[in-house]
Amino acid sequence: MNLEAAVYMIPVGISDAGPEAVVPADTLEAMRGIRHFIVENVRTARRWLRRCTPGCDIDSMTFSELSRHTRPEEIPAMLEPLRRGEPVGVMSEAGCPGVADPGAQVVAIAQREGFRVVPLVGPSSLLLALMASGFNGQGFTFNGYLPIADSERTAAIRRLEKTARNHGVTQIFIETPYRNRKMLDTLVATLRPDTLLCVAVAITDPEHQQIVTLPAAKWKNRRIELEKQPAVFLIG
Amino acid sequence: MNLEAAVYMIPVGISDAGPEAVVPADTLEAMRGIRHFIVENVRTARRWLRRCTPGCDIDSMTFSELSRHTRPEEIPAMLEPLRRGEPVGVMSEAGCPGVADPGAQVVAIAQREGFRVVPLVGPSSLLLALMASGFNGQGFTFNGYLPIADSERTAAIRRLEKTARNHGVTQIFIETPYRNRKMLDTLVATLRPDTLLCVAVAITDPEHQQIVTLPAAKWKNRRIELEKQPAVFLIG
Repeated sequence: MNLEAAVYMIPVGISDAGPEAVVPADTLEAMRGIRHFIVENVRTARRWLRRCTPGCDIDSMTFSELSRHTRPEEIPAMLEPLRRGEPVGVMSEAGCPGVADPGAQVVAIAQREGFRVVPLVGPSSLLLALMASGFNGQGFTFNGYLPIADSERTAAIRRLEKTARNHGVTQIFIETPYRNRKMLDTLVATLRPDTLLCVAVAITDPEHQQIVTLPAAKWKNRRIELEKQPAVFLIG
Repeated sequence: MNLEAAVYMIPVGISDAGPEAVVPADTLEAMRGIRHFIVENVRTARRWLRRCTPGCDIDSMTFSELSRHTRPEEIPAMLEPLRRGEPVGVMSEAGCPGVADPGAQVVAIAQREGFRVVPLVGPSSLLLALMASGFNGQGFTFNGYLPIADSERTAAIRRLEKTARNHGVTQIFIETPYRNRKMLDTLVATLRPDTLLCVAVAITDPEHQQIVTLPAAKWKNRRIELEKQPAVFLIG
């Protein structure tokens, strides 16, 4: 396949679910036409490519790692293949690249140099969680990770709750798996009892998927499998 | 196919591109197992179903319309099939239901009654535009439509620009096709010359797709086909 020279933003699975669950045929087709990749994690990227394009010659491909440890001055060189006229793919560790990962930095350079950027359809845990939360989708904010220190974290939760309640703007944030349980406890202890809280885990995994919206007070007695998996939290 | 009784959030195409461009195989498979739909627009929903599941018996299906004209007291009854144990699908006019459409109202009821809600993967113009903008994806706000009256609109743009510049939170909003040109003119006249503005149109249409990020001052001389199609605007 002859793909136009452009930056292709390639979504990666967010659970063990295979490509058929999370990416359209055209996304798979585009992946087959790309040999140069800029990725958050090389191992994850190779594994996803093998699942999406079985039989692809992975050894003929190049991978540049763009993680939060990458120095900014290293990034422009990653687009060399594009400047030679070859398509380049960008993949994050999971989900849609350019959202909640460092991928946007390379896109900013491509845009500045006038290259085309093509976003391909795939799973976004944030958006899927929002769709299933029942919360306002006409105004929402993604806040990334909240501060870790207790007092700052509590203050952040109170601020988000205020914005959600007073302005109806849904507040979304994420947490790393091993801190999920503590985050939920802090939320239950901090939010007003009738503030609606949605917790979403295993979003694209039909067997373990849980996306549950309840008033904060009711979360006290609700059991949910939170360990070992990324979670999205939403305040409505 | 025997689908679990749940609310399935079914994405709809956002351009003329067919299902293979925008929905995974599993989304199509789920659509084949549903007979009852809650939709923003019945005509669009039927057309999309015919494209996604050729040969489906559309006359045996039921459609309830949930648009911004629907009275809130009419919504709970739309979930009757679910209460009888049958799966229900929710579709908006275009893109992911529950985001920038009235679909969240029915999800809120389903969540309150303890039903499972399953978000299916598909195209979201907001998220795809964000991925390709090069703007911060670790903090962003979707603002829906801005006010229409000139002075309020200008004030809103200035407020969004301030948040984007001072806090690095990407500001996303949408406009109806026939007002796109005027919106771009107002943005160029209002934003500081070096504020980055991204305009995204025909996002999933390979031939007409344009997702361009430029400093506001450079948009003055940039031609872009804006009429007749929905656009997403982003301030970075």
